[in-house]
Amino acid sequence: MSEDWLDAIKWDAQGLVPAIAQEHGTGTILMMAWMNPESLQLTRETGHAVYWSRSRGRLWHKGEESGHQQVVHAIRIDCDADVVLLDVEQKGGIACHTGRHNCFFRELDAQGRWVEVAPVLKDPQAIYGKA
Amino acid sequence: MSEDWLDAIKWDAQGLVPAIAQEHGTGTILMMAWMNPESLQLTRETGHAVYWSRSRGRLWHKGEESGHQQVVHAIRIDCDADVVLLDVEQKGGIACHTGRHNCFFRELDAQGRWVEVAPVLKDPQAIYGKA
Repeated sequence: MSEDWLDAIKWDAQGLVPAIAQEHGTGTILMMAWMNPESLQLTRETGHAVYWSRSRGRLWHKGEESGHQQVVHAIRIDCDADVVLLDVEQKGGIACHTGRHNCFFRELDAQGRWVEVAPVLKDPQAIYGKA
Repeated sequence: MSEDWLDAIKWDAQGLVPAIAQEHGTGTILMMAWMNPESLQLTRETGHAVYWSRSRGRLWHKGEESGHQQVVHAIRIDCDADVVLLDVEQKGGIACHTGRHNCFFRELDAQGRWVEVAPVLKDPQAIYGKA
């Protein structure tokens, strides 16, 4: 199969692009992570979100530890072809490693403080078995 | 006023973070751009999205040419404090420089082709007056 669709993307100096995961149906932004060409290709082939973990320096099959996989309904790119948008179904209803539905749970209040605005749904130790 | 809220953010090696603009009410992801501390501070102070243009190497007051400003309803950060999410009202209903509602108008089809899935609402030449 032609990989023209991967070549159309403008990978950054590290060979990565930001990838935003948006929840199918609700439109909630679950998280933003990074992808290299292999992870995006695997995302398409497997139908599950695969990212590139910059901290671990390896492919990151989302949910590999937690079981919280993301089933991909659609893959989009932006006008500059340097940002990927995934339309996903979030297994387990938890995208964030903190045990929350999504990663954007801190909001700036009028006093200039980051305030938590979403609850922890499941103890991370229960998710990752590190207790 | 304390700038602790800016110090809480993990700016990258270039002193930037990705900033996602999501449309207030609909949840549509309009665009992703970049911010430096000054642009985020101006965003908060003015209530309008201000980005850092990497291509132009200067502050970019969204809508400065097009009039398509983004009125900010909320500012969030993610669990790692390295991605900003803006909840915005998009003036003119056009966020993309191509004249579309949002920048994510290309979707990968089953044959591995990027297909345009959203219409041009206004001719960019009419928006930017470069005709």
